[in-house]
Amino acid sequence: MSKKAIILLSGGLDSITVLALARQQNFLCYALSFNYGQRHNAELTAAKQIAHDYQVLAHKIIDLDLASIGGSALTDEHIAVPNTPQQGIPVTYVPARNTIFLSLALGWAEVLQAQNIFIGVNAVDYSGYPDCRPEFINAFQSLANVATKASTEGQLIKIHTPLIKLTKAEIIQKGIALGINYQQTISCYSADKDGYACGTCDACRLRKAGFEQASVDDPTRYQSKNS
Amino acid sequence: MSKKAIILLSGGLDSITVLALARQQNFLCYALSFNYGQRHNAELTAAKQIAHDYQVLAHKIIDLDLASIGGSALTDEHIAVPNTPQQGIPVTYVPARNTIFLSLALGWAEVLQAQNIFIGVNAVDYSGYPDCRPEFINAFQSLANVATKASTEGQLIKIHTPLIKLTKAEIIQKGIALGINYQQTISCYSADKDGYACGTCDACRLRKAGFEQASVDDPTRYQSKNS
Repeated sequence: MSKKAIILLSGGLDSITVLALARQQNFLCYALSFNYGQRHNAELTAAKQIAHDYQVLAHKIIDLDLASIGGSALTDEHIAVPNTPQQGIPVTYVPARNTIFLSLALGWAEVLQAQNIFIGVNAVDYSGYPDCRPEFINAFQSLANVATKASTEGQLIKIHTPLIKLTKAEIIQKGIALGINYQQTISCYSADKDGYACGTCDACRLRKAGFEQASVDDPTRYQSKNS
Repeated sequence: MSKKAIILLSGGLDSITVLALARQQNFLCYALSFNYGQRHNAELTAAKQIAHDYQVLAHKIIDLDLASIGGSALTDEHIAVPNTPQQGIPVTYVPARNTIFLSLALGWAEVLQAQNIFIGVNAVDYSGYPDCRPEFINAFQSLANVATKASTEGQLIKIHTPLIKLTKAEIIQKGIALGINYQQTISCYSADKDGYACGTCDACRLRKAGFEQASVDDPTRYQSKNS
């Protein structure tokens, strides 16, 4: 089986940890990011730096106009990012986002003859997004293995989700042991153009609590009003 | 169940037939096309005209840079479109194309609160593309129904494939009975900028044979060398 792997790299805390884990396991890493109309574009800048630092074999950034579909606070400027906890699946959910991202990863995997796709989904300390759950990942893997020319030739795809059952604190502890500098990652949904985090959105709250529970100093650069 | 439906509309013979069938069944039709770096851009012009003629409620064209992934004669100008029949799945296969298109349709469906997606795949007179087969469609429907916030609220998705078991001749006969003018459709992989077809690529051969077997005059506008 080829050791080539595509790593979905958002520039956040989870995806850098996945990249470090894949490299530790000697996968040949190709990073994939999306310029999808997200508000928090600073994360793409972070993704580029991380891809460079981890010496991936290639880093592809695909332009994808999810803003034209809308339906999410992350892609529609008319929907505000909440700064207090919400009931149920929050408005930051982007319709079908992981389905779309994994589909494009599948296409690139076929061209590269890679049989591994890594994604940093997590179903413990998460926002309840349906496309982060094990049943979603299993269904995608089943789909992938009937979808491509490669699959008809026996080159099956494995979707790796090394973080799916970890708490945010466990992810951070694993990452620190791997030498990750989390200061270079961006999780905030409302980061400013320089990458400073708001400290109050859902993503910031989960991240903050993770550092606290992990007893690790939070290296995040917060906007001054929250520092 | 909502009667809203998204119709994947390429501008070709199959997708116009699907649109006409969906309208006949009183679905509220939303058309979705992709500007994905395909060589045969004339098909998008055709799709726009068809969407207008069939009075769809909205026609969305999403820009999607599949050329950056490559791996197909349709998206990589360094790979020639063959003009003789090929063994196996031909080089015009675009890696994971229908997975990617259906994923984006799924995202838009969720925003529209539509529960129906129509796609003109065919597993009889086709080029052997794996993502045109019933097992692929079934796997995608299973995925769709665990992938979205809407699915967790019981709003399930049905993927409609009214052409999947028809011969090209049967598709054409059905379309003629529905009053379709196939001259406005483009199937050719190497159409020129005015939409004239080459007459020799895989798509042209399947289409030509379909009109012949259906005993219907072929209205396709061919480039003069093949007329």
